[in-house]
Amino acid sequence: MDIATLIGTVMAFGLIVWAINIGGSLNQFVDMPSVAIVVGGTMAAILSHTPLAKVIGMIGVIKKTLFFTAPEPDAVIAKMVGYAERARREGILALEEDSETEQDLFLRKGLRLAVDGTDVQLLEKIMETDMGKIQARHREGKKILEAGGTFAPAFGMIGTLVGLINMLATLDDPTSIGAGMATALITTFYGAVLANAFFLPLAGKLESRSEQEMLVNEMIIDGIMAIQSGDSPRVVEEKLRSFLSPAMRRRLDAAKDQVAA
Amino acid sequence: MDIATLIGTVMAFGLIVWAINIGGSLNQFVDMPSVAIVVGGTMAAILSHTPLAKVIGMIGVIKKTLFFTAPEPDAVIAKMVGYAERARREGILALEEDSETEQDLFLRKGLRLAVDGTDVQLLEKIMETDMGKIQARHREGKKILEAGGTFAPAFGMIGTLVGLINMLATLDDPTSIGAGMATALITTFYGAVLANAFFLPLAGKLESRSEQEMLVNEMIIDGIMAIQSGDSPRVVEEKLRSFLSPAMRRRLDAAKDQVAA
Amino acid sequence: MDIATLIGTVMAFGLIVWAINIGGSLNQFVDMPSVAIVVGGTMAAILSHTPLAKVIGMIGVIKKTLFFTAPEPDAVIAKMVGYAERARREGILALEEDSETEQDLFLRKGLRLAVDGTDVQLLEKIMETDMGKIQARHREGKKILEAGGTFAPAFGMIGTLVGLINMLATLDDPTSIGAGMATALITTFYGAVLANAFFLPLAGKLESRSEQEMLVNEMIIDGIMAIQSGDSPRVVEEKLRSFLSPAMRRRLDAAKDQVAA
Amino acid sequence: MDIATLIGTVMAFGLIVWAINIGGSLNQFVDMPSVAIVVGGTMAAILSHTPLAKVIGMIGVIKKTLFFTAPEPDAVIAKMVGYAERARREGILALEEDSETEQDLFLRKGLRLAVDGTDVQLLEKIMETDMGKIQARHREGKKILEAGGTFAPAFGMIGTLVGLINMLATLDDPTSIGAGMATALITTFYGAVLANAFFLPLAGKLESRSEQEMLVNEMIIDGIMAIQSGDSPRVVEEKLRSFLSPAMRRRLDAAKDQVAA
Amino acid sequence: MDIATLIGTVMAFGLIVWAINIGGSLNQFVDMPSVAIVVGGTMAAILSHTPLAKVIGMIGVIKKTLFFTAPEPDAVIAKMVGYAERARREGILALEEDSETEQDLFLRKGLRLAVDGTDVQLLEKIMETDMGKIQARHREGKKILEAGGTFAPAFGMIGTLVGLINMLATLDDPTSIGAGMATALITTFYGAVLANAFFLPLAGKLESRSEQEMLVNEMIIDGIMAIQSGDSPRVVEEKLRSFLSPAMRRRLDAAKDQVAA
Repeated sequence: MDIATLIGTVMAFGLIVWAINIGGSLNQFVDMPSVAIVVGGTMAAILSHTPLAKVIGMIGVIKKTLFFTAPEPDAVIAKMVGYAERARREGILALEEDSETEQDLFLRKGLRLAVDGTDVQLLEKIMETDMGKIQARHREGKKILEAGGTFAPAFGMIGTLVGLINMLATLDDPTSIGAGMATALITTFYGAVLANAFFLPLAGKLESRSEQEMLVNEMIIDGIMAIQSGDSPRVVEEKLRSFLSPAMRRRLDAAKDQVAA
Repeated sequence: MDIATLIGTVMAFGLIVWAINIGGSLNQFVDMPSVAIVVGGTMAAILSHTPLAKVIGMIGVIKKTLFFTAPEPDAVIAKMVGYAERARREGILALEEDSETEQDLFLRKGLRLAVDGTDVQLLEKIMETDMGKIQARHREGKKILEAGGTFAPAFGMIGTLVGLINMLATLDDPTSIGAGMATALITTFYGAVLANAFFLPLAGKLESRSEQEMLVNEMIIDGIMAIQSGDSPRVVEEKLRSFLSPAMRRRLDAAKDQVAA
Repeated sequence: MDIATLIGTVMAFGLIVWAINIGGSLNQFVDMPSVAIVVGGTMAAILSHTPLAKVIGMIGVIKKTLFFTAPEPDAVIAKMVGYAERARREGILALEEDSETEQDLFLRKGLRLAVDGTDVQLLEKIMETDMGKIQARHREGKKILEAGGTFAPAFGMIGTLVGLINMLATLDDPTSIGAGMATALITTFYGAVLANAFFLPLAGKLESRSEQEMLVNEMIIDGIMAIQSGDSPRVVEEKLRSFLSPAMRRRLDAAKDQVAA
Repeated sequence: MDIATLIGTVMAFGLIVWAINIGGSLNQFVDMPSVAIVVGGTMAAILSHTPLAKVIGMIGVIKKTLFFTAPEPDAVIAKMVGYAERARREGILALEEDSETEQDLFLRKGLRLAVDGTDVQLLEKIMETDMGKIQARHREGKKILEAGGTFAPAFGMIGTLVGLINMLATLDDPTSIGAGMATALITTFYGAVLANAFFLPLAGKLESRSEQEMLVNEMIIDGIMAIQSGDSPRVVEEKLRSFLSPAMRRRLDAAKDQVAA
Repeated sequence: MDIATLIGTVMAFGLIVWAINIGGSLNQFVDMPSVAIVVGGTMAAILSHTPLAKVIGMIGVIKKTLFFTAPEPDAVIAKMVGYAERARREGILALEEDSETEQDLFLRKGLRLAVDGTDVQLLEKIMETDMGKIQARHREGKKILEAGGTFAPAFGMIGTLVGLINMLATLDDPTSIGAGMATALITTFYGAVLANAFFLPLAGKLESRSEQEMLVNEMIIDGIMAIQSGDSPRVVEEKLRSFLSPAMRRRLDAAKDQVAA
């Protein structure tokens, strides 16, 4: 699904480059010292703002935001119903193999706990603690991206102030004021682009992504608990369906009809 | 009721066009590259910000905000009292047909659960989970509109910076500075209009609309629970009246007097 | 008490008019198209932002904020103690007449419930639900005023952008730039005045007013519960006194001493 | 302790006056009409924003913030231990005299309740309600100061807009633009100084002060409850020590060693 | 670990100095009166904003943020498992010596309570109160740094307004406007740098640091409770592992494998 992040980012930068080329040349907008002060300053502020280990972890966070696809809730239902059927037919111990091969790490942990015969209440508590920790890590990633969205425009403004003060202090030739001002404004431009085409949209995406993953994880917790309580596959499906939006329910029904047909 | 959104949006855009025509001509304010950078940039940022599936869902959200009318709380009371009367007279199974024809999907679900003889506590829990999910989807729609209200002015400013830098860097003829500045400012203008005459008001409307729907849904939950507990129609009405504002209560009484007269 | 809102509003507008007259003439500041774009645009945005029925209700809200006086907490205590005395002397049914003539609608409802012999727990729950709904309506009114405080400056800026772009695009005579700029800035001025001398202060006043009314309503709930539990007038007074600030307690004691003297 | 507020305020204003004198003369910065519009407008907006009775109460709030010193937590411990000792030795009724002479009104109330033999649970509930009301009054004071911090810059900007529009509309002599602009900017300057050297710092101080007082009040509640439960002075001290920061604990121990030496 | 704060701060200031040198000379950016108004004004506002004792404590807070390294969660697990082993083998009293030599003050307190045979519920309550107080002190430190991040740009703007008004009021020679403006802007520059390269990043770091310490403290509480309940070292480890991120768990396993190898 997450080609959208890529498309959005490429489209935003593409539009800006195109807009520049209409009225001028891209050369005027490439200024390495300006890049250094905005990108470098933002990175420096993030380093002061967030412990080093987390900044390094941010790379993983951004990658995940760009390339990761959360499982669709309807796919999760299908999977949980499958596990419920096997547990019904062959007993819960039949899930032992799945508890080692299941791709989704959170679901795998749930299966292992169920196979181990963990008490239902305890299982719920362990899985919810785990989910809470995952959510906390997502929140930290979002905080770092939001810090980038705050510091990039700030260093853009600092760069512009440096440029303006330098220019004004040595203003001999009033005709040169235009060019000096243009250069000074480039850092403001960089800061605005970095914040609005990169940091802030990614922070929003990470949040949506996290909510999506948490919805799926909630479904997994409820599903595992139902399986371990010995609910029939039909009950498991009914319980998990209440998590779906009406559109998803229709899609799930359509898929079933297709199978039945 | 929601002609107001339409009136408000048309009126805001109409006033702006009128204001433009007083002091100049609309032509000066139509600049396709500026449209591209502001509208395109905002869309690109929203795409990076929100998973694709939700962006597509936004179209439905906006339509709903513009054209949908939530049932009036007093109409809901009348309907619930009607169901309560039939359940009293003919038994709860008499609502089976209604549970298939009722227009309001949330109420239909409640009727089906009641007809199925679901336990009152369980019925309340299921309906509240459902209501929570509906509310969460509304919140997501609002977040997307608010993101539009943040990114539109940001890309307006980015467009103006591009225009300013291009103009200042090639400033040979000081007399042309006015025209260049005018063009540069158009993107800021677009961003401000998009945010304040479109995205932010619609985000607010969606929130009001959601609160209204949730009030009605709460009434439905309480009403269905009362019906299933076998409350008399008069008690059902009394319970639901506490949800009404004084003005609505007067309106409801007036309507009843009219019927009685 | 609420002459303060009137004084504050008149004083703010008066000071601004006076400041204008010092350095120029009021004529320069009256521009009907500017009024249309700022006031009209703000109204249009509020219409898009809030369902029509609520916008109409806002008129009542503003009136209430300007002219309504919440009962003083010490006056409420005196009244509740009076009811407690009568209930003690003549039995709770003696309050039946009061439950029809009492001015305060919230207190009247409480008296009616007490006279009807409603169970104390149920009485508390009903009155708190009612109070919650009143509070929710106040919050909605505040949201509308805050929306006005957001959209008025925004449309002020939009008007100024329109004026600037028009002026700059047709800039033949550099000496006319001053007058054009002056006209363009008038909408920004209108927006700032509307927001800071009207919408935002009234939003704040509505919030204070609401808190005050809720404090009184909490006192009424506690008082009615005490009366219905058969507490003596002295105990009722003692219970309600803990709601008062030290200054109010001193005032209440002074009033009693005066009566005693 | 609160000489800091005085020092901070005097220092901030002193620095600004000094900065003015370096590059110009103070006369240029004293403009009575500008004072009238910023100070008067801010006061008018606060009057519209907050009920009159509370605005008058603000004077007390500001005085308290400037001159009041909250008791130090370690001094409170010493006092509570003293009361615990007397109650242990002579019985709780021995505190009757203290319950009339104790300076701290909150502690005095606690002592009175303890002497009256109020049940521990009830005592806790009464004192916590009381503390909640005190806290609510502090929050109101903070809201008024924050409103000042919002409206002062807004009226500063309104004054500057008035000045700018007046100047630009009558711009005959371009050389006079500097002086006109200087005068127009003075209100912005006043607004920024009022907000950042007066309203906002005092709002912050009031919050700190309130937290400090609430910490002390929590200690008093726990201490009175311990005394009334008949805890030994050593246990009372141990219970209250957990409220102290490590630095305060060291200071408390040092003080005791000094006494012992 | 916290070399990052140092690197970030040095890097941010270094980049700014470098950027200044590219287009001008550092001399133009050093202006002692400007330093006085921004740094002095910010300090004055903080003094008004925060009680003196806390401002002095801030020095400790900043030092801690710069130089302190929170223990790694995996190191805490190793330590807790060690204590659990000794308690298992030699009885809980064997931890008496550790309860006097343990470096971590929070853990030391926990050990002492365990050795004293404090009831598990009480132990949890005492340690959580203690943790709450530590967290409150961190929050206060963060508030002071954030106040710095608010007041520094504000006093930068006040300084610029003073400079602008002085310059404009005495504007005889239009060619000197550049130099005057340059000087006036220096305070805005100082304010932006102070806020974005110092106060705000450090406020963020303090928050991360506090969360990290609280995570470790939560682990200590759970660990001590497990030890005192007589859990086996393996169970203690299992319980504490759920606090770790997957990356940390892998690191912990790798470390154990290395030990085993």
